[in-house]
Amino acid sequence: MRIDQRTADDLRPIQLSIDVNKHAEGSVLIELGDTKVLCTATVEEKVPPFLRGKRQGWINAEYSMLPRATAQRTAREAVRGKQTGRTMEIQRLISRSLRAVVDLEKLGERTIWIDCDVIQADGGTRTASITGGFLALVRAVDQLIQAGKLTDTPIKEGIAAISVGIVESNVLLDLCYEEDAAAEVDFNLVMTSSGKIVEMQATGEESTFSRQEMLEMLELGEKGIKELIEAGREALGVSWWYVGEEVGEHR
Amino acid sequence: MRIDQRTADDLRPIQLSIDVNKHAEGSVLIELGDTKVLCTATVEEKVPPFLRGKRQGWINAEYSMLPRATAQRTAREAVRGKQTGRTMEIQRLISRSLRAVVDLEKLGERTIWIDCDVIQADGGTRTASITGGFLALVRAVDQLIQAGKLTDTPIKEGIAAISVGIVESNVLLDLCYEEDAAAEVDFNLVMTSSGKIVEMQATGEESTFSRQEMLEMLELGEKGIKELIEAGREALGVSWWYVGEEVGEHR
Amino acid sequence: MRIDQRTADDLRPIQLSIDVNKHAEGSVLIELGDTKVLCTATVEEKVPPFLRGKRQGWINAEYSMLPRATAQRTAREAVRGKQTGRTMEIQRLISRSLRAVVDLEKLGERTIWIDCDVIQADGGTRTASITGGFLALVRAVDQLIQAGKLTDTPIKEGIAAISVGIVESNVLLDLCYEEDAAAEVDFNLVMTSSGKIVEMQATGEESTFSRQEMLEMLELGEKGIKELIEAGREALGVSWWYVGEEVGEHR
Amino acid sequence: MRIDQRTADDLRPIQLSIDVNKHAEGSVLIELGDTKVLCTATVEEKVPPFLRGKRQGWINAEYSMLPRATAQRTAREAVRGKQTGRTMEIQRLISRSLRAVVDLEKLGERTIWIDCDVIQADGGTRTASITGGFLALVRAVDQLIQAGKLTDTPIKEGIAAISVGIVESNVLLDLCYEEDAAAEVDFNLVMTSSGKIVEMQATGEESTFSRQEMLEMLELGEKGIKELIEAGREALGVSWWYVGEEVGEHR
Amino acid sequence: MRIDQRTADDLRPIQLSIDVNKHAEGSVLIELGDTKVLCTATVEEKVPPFLRGKRQGWINAEYSMLPRATAQRTAREAVRGKQTGRTMEIQRLISRSLRAVVDLEKLGERTIWIDCDVIQADGGTRTASITGGFLALVRAVDQLIQAGKLTDTPIKEGIAAISVGIVESNVLLDLCYEEDAAAEVDFNLVMTSSGKIVEMQATGEESTFSRQEMLEMLELGEKGIKELIEAGREALGVSWWYVGEEVGEHR
Amino acid sequence: MRIDQRTADDLRPIQLSIDVNKHAEGSVLIELGDTKVLCTATVEEKVPPFLRGKRQGWINAEYSMLPRATAQRTAREAVRGKQTGRTMEIQRLISRSLRAVVDLEKLGERTIWIDCDVIQADGGTRTASITGGFLALVRAVDQLIQAGKLTDTPIKEGIAAISVGIVESNVLLDLCYEEDAAAEVDFNLVMTSSGKIVEMQATGEESTFSRQEMLEMLELGEKGIKELIEAGREALGVSWWYVGEEVGEHR
Repeated sequence: MRIDQRTADDLRPIQLSIDVNKHAEGSVLIELGDTKVLCTATVEEKVPPFLRGKRQGWINAEYSMLPRATAQRTAREAVRGKQTGRTMEIQRLISRSLRAVVDLEKLGERTIWIDCDVIQADGGTRTASITGGFLALVRAVDQLIQAGKLTDTPIKEGIAAISVGIVESNVLLDLCYEEDAAAEVDFNLVMTSSGKIVEMQATGEESTFSRQEMLEMLELGEKGIKELIEAGREALGVSWWYVGEEVGEHR
Repeated sequence: MRIDQRTADDLRPIQLSIDVNKHAEGSVLIELGDTKVLCTATVEEKVPPFLRGKRQGWINAEYSMLPRATAQRTAREAVRGKQTGRTMEIQRLISRSLRAVVDLEKLGERTIWIDCDVIQADGGTRTASITGGFLALVRAVDQLIQAGKLTDTPIKEGIAAISVGIVESNVLLDLCYEEDAAAEVDFNLVMTSSGKIVEMQATGEESTFSRQEMLEMLELGEKGIKELIEAGREALGVSWWYVGEEVGEHR
Repeated sequence: MRIDQRTADDLRPIQLSIDVNKHAEGSVLIELGDTKVLCTATVEEKVPPFLRGKRQGWINAEYSMLPRATAQRTAREAVRGKQTGRTMEIQRLISRSLRAVVDLEKLGERTIWIDCDVIQADGGTRTASITGGFLALVRAVDQLIQAGKLTDTPIKEGIAAISVGIVESNVLLDLCYEEDAAAEVDFNLVMTSSGKIVEMQATGEESTFSRQEMLEMLELGEKGIKELIEAGREALGVSWWYVGEEVGEHR
Repeated sequence: MRIDQRTADDLRPIQLSIDVNKHAEGSVLIELGDTKVLCTATVEEKVPPFLRGKRQGWINAEYSMLPRATAQRTAREAVRGKQTGRTMEIQRLISRSLRAVVDLEKLGERTIWIDCDVIQADGGTRTASITGGFLALVRAVDQLIQAGKLTDTPIKEGIAAISVGIVESNVLLDLCYEEDAAAEVDFNLVMTSSGKIVEMQATGEESTFSRQEMLEMLELGEKGIKELIEAGREALGVSWWYVGEEVGEHR
Repeated sequence: MRIDQRTADDLRPIQLSIDVNKHAEGSVLIELGDTKVLCTATVEEKVPPFLRGKRQGWINAEYSMLPRATAQRTAREAVRGKQTGRTMEIQRLISRSLRAVVDLEKLGERTIWIDCDVIQADGGTRTASITGGFLALVRAVDQLIQAGKLTDTPIKEGIAAISVGIVESNVLLDLCYEEDAAAEVDFNLVMTSSGKIVEMQATGEESTFSRQEMLEMLELGEKGIKELIEAGREALGVSWWYVGEEVGEHR
Repeated sequence: MRIDQRTADDLRPIQLSIDVNKHAEGSVLIELGDTKVLCTATVEEKVPPFLRGKRQGWINAEYSMLPRATAQRTAREAVRGKQTGRTMEIQRLISRSLRAVVDLEKLGERTIWIDCDVIQADGGTRTASITGGFLALVRAVDQLIQAGKLTDTPIKEGIAAISVGIVESNVLLDLCYEEDAAAEVDFNLVMTSSGKIVEMQATGEESTFSRQEMLEMLELGEKGIKELIEAGREALGVSWWYVGEEVGEHR
């Protein structure tokens, strides 16, 4: 039995609040237990310099934690004058992951910014950012379609992410902070609704692991991803990603 | 009649959610219409270098807006590598204001950090930060007292802040963004529960104003402050600031 | 009697040296007692990006103190790698104030930079910067008119600024550093030659004040402003601002 | 047949030059085909602030590319004023990996800095940095033992890293730049001499992959790692890591 | 005949105003024609970290130009966020030069900061900074002696600096800006009152020069230095450097 | 006899490895005793903003030391967030020196970047960078000519640089680190193949020197430069600079 009474393969309670921000083209507050991340999607009608004239769009994610999202207050990156390596690593991961399920040519010459701001942290903020960021992205695409700027969705399929870990030799799904801090191995999985892997990062925290352990973590991760994808579908209701998935052919 | 159906001296609907953050010693989500600011208070058991050994404490506030708090996305200060002048000006104002109602010697050699993060902006974010930041501060002091680290409250009285402005020659209380953008004069008032002024900033936005107009703005501001102080009292319930005010003498 | 033998409503001796810089389009060395600020105005024939194509000009002020302007040496902001919050707050105040008396459309698509560099500080450097910066601005406009680049002055009226404060319960005009450091309330007033308020900032320095005290400070400030405006007029001699004020209608 | 005539499971020619730097406690120039990385190890007799008094040491790696290591010149990070996200991500990976095979308590209160500077890049620079950095680390430990500062080696076992990828549906070992740029999936593997996984990062480059493909990449990676570990052993000759592995028990 | 009517070996008119700053331990406004540099000396009773406990003092110079010291406005380094290479090069030159005539052990464990701020530039600002900075340094030492903190002067002898150049094949002393901009060779000389060279920098500006030309520039420079040293002596009147030079032996 | 058995006018052993970098248009590894600098030349088909449309090219050098090039590890400038004054001073010197022997109009509207990265330092890295950087530049020009982008060489003549110093009153050529650290006077000379001086910097290190000593240093420097120029010629073999020098007239 885990510290918060879950079994090894339980996700924490999920809550997805859609369209929580008055200004953003898409927005989702994702809560996984005590981890809360506000994800907004912003449509900008231009692309970064390296893509100009290449007839394709771009997805760019940024990630940050409020100073008191954590048990100890963390100094603001804006005050320190630069982002930490951890932040940069995470926002590169979110960006890459979301681009894997978007047809950037269909998106057209525009950028969608995904801002993931951690309101409260309790483990798994980077994976929650991907899961929530995707839903915000879908809402922004919905809006582009409703506004007639897109005729077809550039979203190829759904995506979600989850953490798994080995704690005192037990493989556990969706680590909370206390478990994460004690984990010997940390595993982050990003997967699509059709079950393809997008990103898989397994890290021995000053430790090592075997192929067999890796496969067990992968299995648990797949289970969590399926539940998260399903929760996202329900939260969004009828949206272009959902429809696209159902009818398939028209894309 | 104003754009959102208010009369000239109406505040927007106020909502104060206390203790919304699991980690912080004090926290308040203040909502004034569509303006939403998350204020957390962190107790740090040391003081900045310039105060070491001076047997007094310190209050330090920081302010930031999430990128999509605004109608147009604002670039992150952490990415730009520095805070803007506007941000610095605002966090200096919040810090000074809160220090005016705290007996820093009674606080002892510790710092209370007040973090004001704007989740959604619709005008009046700096004044909402002061009003909400004060309540978070009270909660942190409550906790210090309960933990036996303080025997008496260092909070001298309550404080709140509000904006007033002149829009098309009308003096209006608590401007929303649309009114703020159109205002000829912008007035921010910080006042205590006993009706003393802490800070008063009146600015002609590429415009000027008379002494008479200034006095009208002050009057409207006082009315708003009283309502905010009252709302804060109710939201906190029995806390050391409230008790202190009632019994008066024991401080 | 004050520390430097002045009465409560005395300004310190004023000295205004016009056109002290060989290169600048306008320049003034303003001395108020031991406070000395060198103000230069630079005309740049373009506007900032956010104003391009909007058929209007811009006024932008920057402020800095030489390292040994102060009793203790202050580290250079260029060495620290960024401007302090105080500097940013001050230069935003100077910029806003000067824009309030300039018709930016009449100015045309050009920027006037006002550089205020404090050679020696003894209290009141921000208000001296506004008073001196305005005179440098007038000289730069004179030169634009003489060069035929402007046919009419964009300056709507004169402007000056002064500090007032409450020291040991006495309301005093034009605080020197020693008074400023001891002040319970600090009040900065920016006013035009026609007596309209442009900016008014009253700050309890970890203290509070009443409406009555605020009005007394305002009154003293108005007296000081009038004297400064008059001193500026004399120093400039016949210039377009002076003429404009006298004959009124032709503008 | 690959672009450089290798078969799918061929490493590029390896060259390991030990003790190439006159000053460093340990140094290795690792060449894998046209990829050349200079790795130096520096012993510093103190630990970072967060470890003070905790009776353990630390390993910290930094990574950089010379401006013309690449086909197009890359601007210096020192000129841009900050390290890129890619650099930070890589140096975090190197640091974590090396720490996994070092007993930090045995190392004592000292830091070993591993500097990995890419002299010429042709794919696989991050994995070459780990492989070469480990050998430099061993040499620095040798020197600590010879100097009597350590009586036993803190190195638990050997470590190496390699890249694998899927290019036009073929799983290939040790990608050169041209293959890397065309890869659909990029896989980096860090493994110890006893065959345990330390880190595994599989990334679909705007693409996805199956569990089966992941396992094929893992297999190829294991083959490459074994060859690199063997090459390292030969290059070092008798050193404490080598001896330790052979006799096993005495550690 | 030169552009400003001087002969080839004429200095521009020199004006040295001593003790112009109310706060600084030493201060000099040096004017060489239209070049005006304010030099202040600050005594700080500690040394930089690398000198702690080494029983010696330090001299550290900083240099900056006001934005409108130049014909075109120069952006502030504090706004750009860093000092330019030119600034750094100049302040290193001033620091080294002044240290050459100070017995740092006699100075004791203190730092003298020399701040050289260019109020107006017309060529030769770096050499004027050395000449003026030395006089400010002498005044600060005078004050240390008068305060009983030093019993003997640490200043070994006088120092001054001047620029020479080759313009249209003519060797000219003390270039003004217009000559400097046209010069083929730029030569800066720093020399002591006893005629020893401290620093000599000769630079072909995208051009070259012969040994003979170098010697001619040196000769002209020596003449200028003697006149500057003499002017400094007169301006200071009786000060410890002057006395020291006269009586010689007692140092 | 010197520390490394050389006579006063001996250079250290020179080794010049040409075209060591696979990617760069020109590259040279220069070794002078234990000092090793990798110099690469990059051709960029555009010029900096201040030269646009002026029908001329530009040479820009950058300099850096690997962290463990030195006896003690030096922190990376990229981590510190800025280049040191020393680095900036050195790269300005290299840039100026190389521009002195290039006809920038003949070069056409392109920039040649010279990157000088110190792999190992043992004194004289700035002068080795000039000597080696020139050879890399020649190779890049060779390639431009072979590619038909230039019909004639813009290189006017050869150039090299060397350090000289006074150590315990002895004038010594080509100081190694140990001598450099003990030197009273440090002298850097940059000279062309026809014996013209490009740059000459003589610095008393908290010391002074006479005209006679300066002339002796110059003489020794000239001897060293001739040997370096000759070594460069041999290393390059037939290249456009070599041919140009021989036949002379055709340029």
